[in-house]
Amino acid sequence: MTTSAERTRVAIVGAGPAGLLLSHLLAASGIESVVVDQRSREEIENTIRAGILEQGTVDLLAATGASTRVLTDGHRHDGIELRFAGEGHRIDFPSLTGRSVWLYPQHEVLRDLVATRLADGQDLRFGVTVDHVADATSDRPRIVGTDDEGRPFEIEADFVVGADGSRSVVRAAVTGSSTGGYFREYPFAWFGILCEAPPSSEELIYSNSPNGFALISQRSATVQRMYFQCDPEADPHALDEEAIWAELQSRVPGTTLQEGRIFQRDVLRFRSFVAHELRRGRLALIGDAAHTVPPTGAKGMNLAVADVVLLHRALTALLDDRDERPLEAFAEVALRRIWKAQHFSWWMTSMLHVAPDASDFDRRRQEGELRSVVESEAGRTYLAEAYTGWPFETRL
Amino acid sequence: MTTSAERTRVAIVGAGPAGLLLSHLLAASGIESVVVDQRSREEIENTIRAGILEQGTVDLLAATGASTRVLTDGHRHDGIELRFAGEGHRIDFPSLTGRSVWLYPQHEVLRDLVATRLADGQDLRFGVTVDHVADATSDRPRIVGTDDEGRPFEIEADFVVGADGSRSVVRAAVTGSSTGGYFREYPFAWFGILCEAPPSSEELIYSNSPNGFALISQRSATVQRMYFQCDPEADPHALDEEAIWAELQSRVPGTTLQEGRIFQRDVLRFRSFVAHELRRGRLALIGDAAHTVPPTGAKGMNLAVADVVLLHRALTALLDDRDERPLEAFAEVALRRIWKAQHFSWWMTSMLHVAPDASDFDRRRQEGELRSVVESEAGRTYLAEAYTGWPFETRL
Repeated sequence: MTTSAERTRVAIVGAGPAGLLLSHLLAASGIESVVVDQRSREEIENTIRAGILEQGTVDLLAATGASTRVLTDGHRHDGIELRFAGEGHRIDFPSLTGRSVWLYPQHEVLRDLVATRLADGQDLRFGVTVDHVADATSDRPRIVGTDDEGRPFEIEADFVVGADGSRSVVRAAVTGSSTGGYFREYPFAWFGILCEAPPSSEELIYSNSPNGFALISQRSATVQRMYFQCDPEADPHALDEEAIWAELQSRVPGTTLQEGRIFQRDVLRFRSFVAHELRRGRLALIGDAAHTVPPTGAKGMNLAVADVVLLHRALTALLDDRDERPLEAFAEVALRRIWKAQHFSWWMTSMLHVAPDASDFDRRRQEGELRSVVESEAGRTYLAEAYTGWPFETRL
Repeated sequence: MTTSAERTRVAIVGAGPAGLLLSHLLAASGIESVVVDQRSREEIENTIRAGILEQGTVDLLAATGASTRVLTDGHRHDGIELRFAGEGHRIDFPSLTGRSVWLYPQHEVLRDLVATRLADGQDLRFGVTVDHVADATSDRPRIVGTDDEGRPFEIEADFVVGADGSRSVVRAAVTGSSTGGYFREYPFAWFGILCEAPPSSEELIYSNSPNGFALISQRSATVQRMYFQCDPEADPHALDEEAIWAELQSRVPGTTLQEGRIFQRDVLRFRSFVAHELRRGRLALIGDAAHTVPPTGAKGMNLAVADVVLLHRALTALLDDRDERPLEAFAEVALRRIWKAQHFSWWMTSMLHVAPDASDFDRRRQEGELRSVVESEAGRTYLAEAYTGWPFETRL
């Protein structure tokens, strides 16, 4: 192959929230980048994903101009409800932590980021398949693949970033294996629906019931998102609408759900993953390429943003000042937050779901745990701090 | 059998902390009781048991005259250390909760209680074996068995209390089965030693290390108590002293343990248990007869004291005022604290021990959990509240 490689400062694989936000912050620091993604713009912008944004994520998106709509079109939520043993208990975020979260779907964040990047002249290429990273251990690594017309391409960069999701191609060059990481599977999944109905509650309800977990979420005045714990092998089309509503309703005793036409249904499998290595030489992984969390803690996109903040600092030091030290510290600092978030996601999951093999002791202990948390201001605060997001790390 | 039954107001089976303290509080309320125990006084007073007393337990023992020595001979501890990833993190109880704990061994509490009860003229009988509870569903239940000379006896009472430990005889009459309860076993135990040495640290060290858990505890200026996680099937005599010190030392990197002659060694198996029923008619279970917890949370004796406080209130209402309502509420109110304490004991155990089947993910998540707790004032407070003890419940 004798294609002559293009050059850029930072080659970013993946136009999800992590990759696009990184290119945005780099551009603001005067560092040029190219962002490539296998998917089309339409696909990226229309894959409906949940979106609970931490206070710090919202502040960053708004302050940097990455999203001008998050504060106007997003909905601030000042709390969640934990429901168990037939009673609801509100966790009030502002009084406990001085922070809130925002409900603003991930695909809306992506639309904002794509529009902002394109308006700013970002080199952003869709339909581009990266096959591998060449010269991965050199100072000039290259991403190699085929463009949107099937032609081979190479881009040589000072730094290559894998922001290419849980099936990351870049990961193999960082960890030495495409799956090299710590992982954990769960014996349950979420059956999720989108429906045409008014909200059943103003805030999210996380409900632990004898029948299993349910999450009553919101989307807009006319569309709602709800989930209930199901078998990972469940067929999303095996239940009729009546059966779905009966399942949901049985898991939030005390609330009458507003029902409506169900226009999307899916089964979300749970997985916890952290890559064995987050950086190697002039390559790094961020976002889902570096870690995935079960959705119960609402940490996915927020953890990606925290990675971006760290890597942006490391890259400006490296490329502007030839200071390698922040890059040397990147993985260790990022991993501290990642493992705390992994723990929080596991904790919310295990505290609220009913494991298929749970004994009667386990069920009662779980209720004792939920009671311990909601009865203690410290317990509520500990949960609220994690849910609204720890401050971004400033030391590198 | 035609023994003529003696009579008392409250027949208490078991002269452990729960039974003796209950008789003490009842006597102060003018309610007569008989306490019987299978063991000899010497056996009860010389079985060395750990003793971390919650603030509320100490306050109660001192205020009611149950123990005059706890405040003078006990040692107030204002914190513990959680050690993981090679670093120690102190949990400072007074600044977080305004409370402390006291190190005062359980057998010292028992010596105080026995002396106090006997000085007050308590009918306290050792070497008495209760075989069963007769007329268990009536208003005049009887305890039936043999006395210290092997002669049959019966004591009829307004109320019978099972304070007879984890192998309770009274429990069968309450639950319908001698083992009827919720339980959980653990894949590890503690290898405990008593040794002649000065203290290695001023406060307890709870250490999570790659080799497993260790607890560095204290007893006096010249005698120390230490534990390390071991296999439940371990033979306490299979290791020589050098090997025991090597195990302990390897689990508290950063601290040089003060070694000395080991004069007692034992393997403590872990078990969580809660009886299915705590009360039936005029019978109730308290202390280890009602529940056992793994030792990591130091909750055993404290939970017994909380049971006693509740049952004392219920019995004075019943016997003085013919008010059955507090007794009707006893089990539900007691169980709220019991399941919180079961959770706390499970949590401290699972957060600090290394499960034999722990994956690399589990180990890293555990470190993320420990880091989340110690880095957050709310997390430290949530732990300290439970460790120093929730306030005794006042509603019945």
